[in-house]
This record gives sequence, structure tokens and C-alpha cells, in this order.
Amino acid sequence: MKSYRKELWFNLPNRRQFINITSQVEQCLRESGVKEGMVLCNAMHITSSVFINDDESGLHHDFEVWLEKLAPEKPYAQYHHNGSEDNADAHLKRTVMGREVVVAITEGRLDFGPWEQIFYGEFDGKRRKRVLVKIIGD
Amino acid sequence: MKSYRKELWFNLPNRRQFINITSQVEQCLRESGVKEGMVLCNAMHITSSVFINDDESGLHHDFEVWLEKLAPEKPYAQYHHNGSEDNADAHLKRTVMGREVVVAITEGRLDFGPWEQIFYGEFDGKRRKRVLVKIIGD
Amino acid sequence: MKSYRKELWFNLPNRRQFINITSQVEQCLRESGVKEGMVLCNAMHITSSVFINDDESGLHHDFEVWLEKLAPEKPYAQYHHNGSEDNADAHLKRTVMGREVVVAITEGRLDFGPWEQIFYGEFDGKRRKRVLVKIIGD
Repeated sequence: MKSYRKELWFNLPNRRQFINITSQVEQCLRESGVKEGMVLCNAMHITSSVFINDDESGLHHDFEVWLEKLAPEKPYAQYHHNGSEDNADAHLKRTVMGREVVVAITEGRLDFGPWEQIFYGEFDGKRRKRVLVKIIGD
Repeated sequence: MKSYRKELWFNLPNRRQFINITSQVEQCLRESGVKEGMVLCNAMHITSSVFINDDESGLHHDFEVWLEKLAPEKPYAQYHHNGSEDNADAHLKRTVMGREVVVAITEGRLDFGPWEQIFYGEFDGKRRKRVLVKIIGD
Repeated sequence: MKSYRKELWFNLPNRRQFINITSQVEQCLRESGVKEGMVLCNAMHITSSVFINDDESGLHHDFEVWLEKLAPEKPYAQYHHNGSEDNADAHLKRTVMGREVVVAITEGRLDFGPWEQIFYGEFDGKRRKRVLVKIIGD
């Protein structure tokens, strides 16, 4: 069994932002040499997410509005976590979007449906954070 | 390491519907010959879900009501994604329910607790869509 | 490929409660002898969760308040599932928090970011329930 590991680093200028990382994960897959197996791709921070959805800006706007409705950023004092922090909402938003995705590898490619793309979802940005790509297989 | 891949196809008559696919995944597992490993089962579409929960019709009704409260289908114009589309709510509902499940394989069986069943969750049906079953192990 | 399996049992005194199980999963990893691979850790019950977040009591309070807002326990009669049951809300809360996590194993350790911790999330406690730890790799 082969295994491969890489960290992808981000430093996004906004508190909340989505970045399409599909091509970076595909590059990892090529480097790994794995033809049949699985990719785990997860946020290494508990205020960000890795998720799969559509690369469509209208939908990303809808996600932002919807997450703010489900888990509003402000007022900060509504959350007990926000003593010395102000990012409780980011923990909740990331919970809705998910920490990780597992993607099948078939014949050396990400085994995706027609519109599946992998995103890094940042909910507490303006600092260096990272995603783990771990690949196992043959 | 063995690997196995199969697509399960669906064409559901309703916009939203849950289908128990446990026996189909078990059939895949038998075909794979894998005794120890993992099954990845994921929607290949970004408006549907694969999730694990109870096969109980009252609960499925509760999920429908709850998801409509969290991410209502209408009015369509509330979502920016709904220019030429009308399925923004399906992207959000699938996000709550999840894209994928990973299930342990032990002694050739899905290693489940007493009530765990795998469902395909459709949120934008009335057309052909599919689920990927990928199995790796020995 | 090596594989390892263990059940972790819980009997929590409260209906809802979070337990940090990271050290138990690390113990499983040591027992497995796996150096490179993946850990699947999942609730075996459909009214509980395994998730990764911060071990901070203020945040856990925020999760409790937030989940009660998204999927209130009472009134019981609001849910069709609650005929002979009273735990429909637990199925919904676990859906938000997630059934499972998959964690990379690198050089014999859980490959975690700085604050990642694994929790068992109970939403219908006061009885014996369990978590599955399945490890595959080399």
C-alpha cells in the first residue's frame, strides 16, 4: 500500500471565503502515483471546512447568507466561546459545511460526478491556515 | 490491496425522496470479496446525499419538514443560484445531510450498529442520478 | 494491509453530553501498529455523533444552545417519529454534527492540526451506546 501526505497552506484576506482546491488535490494525486484508493482531504483547523459542491458564484453567495442565518457572526456576546475569541460562529458554520471529504481514486483520477469540485471553506481568515491531503492505495 | 467500484443509478419520481440502499451496498461488498477494509459511498451529484440513519417513515417525514424549515425550496428568487436553476435549496439540504458515508468492513460485512441503514437522499429528482460505491481492503 | 477494530462503550448520565475520546482513539492506534493509513471513527447509533472540534467548555455550551434552536427537543409531538419514541430531535442533532470522522495516520500518529480533538456527541443518553474505531493501513 502506498501513502502520500501534503499540507496546502492558505492565508485568505477575508474572514469568510471559499477557494476551489480541486486542481491542487489532483496535483497531489499525480505526485502520489496511486491508481486505486482513497483521498482524505480535511481542514486542520476547527474554524474551516473542506467540502464538495458547485463552483458557481451565486451558490456561494447563497451559502454565505444561509450560514449567517443559521449561525450569525454577531452579536459576539451571544456565544460563551467568545470571551477572548470572536469566532464561535466559525466553529458552528464549519460544522454545517463539514470538516473533511473522502474521494475515491479510480484509474489514477478523482472519481467525481459531473459537477463535483473540492473547496476550502474559510470562516475565520486573515491568517495562515492549512488543509491536509492524505492518499492511500496502490 | 483489493479495490472495487460500482455506480448505483436512480431516477426518482419526486423532487425529494429517501431510498434505502443498504442491500445494494451489501451486494457490492459481496462482489468485491473484501473482508477487512472500508466502503466509501457518495452521491456523485451536488444536489443529493448519502447518509446513515433510521428506516422509519415518521422520521423521514420529520427530516423533510426540518430541511424545508432550514433551507426552504420557495420562493425561488430568494437564492442567487436560481437564475436559470431552481435547485439552490437542494444544494443546501444536501449539505446538512452530507455527501458521503464511510463504513467499516469487518469479516466481510458492513460493520454496523443495530439500526444503521444507508440512504440515498434525493433533493432535486425526476432525472437520472447516481451514487458511487468504492471499496478498498483485503 | 493491517486492519484493527475496537468498540468504545459509553453510558452517559445526561440526555446530551460531549466526551473527548482522543486519547482512547490514540490508544487504539498504538494497539493497531499502523504507521501510515486512516482511522474511521463512527457512532454506531443513529442518535449520537463523532465529530472533531475544540475542547472548550464555552463552545460546547454554544453547541448545545445552537442545536436546541435548530432542532428543539420539545414539544415532543412536533415530530412524527415521536410515537413510542421521544428522540426525533436526537436524530436531527446528530445529522448536523455528523456520524463519523476519518483521520489520517502519519508516522504512527493521528495527523491533526493544533486544536483538533475527537468527541463522542450523545443526544439520547442514559443508556449503553458505542463508537466503532476501525483502522486500516501499513
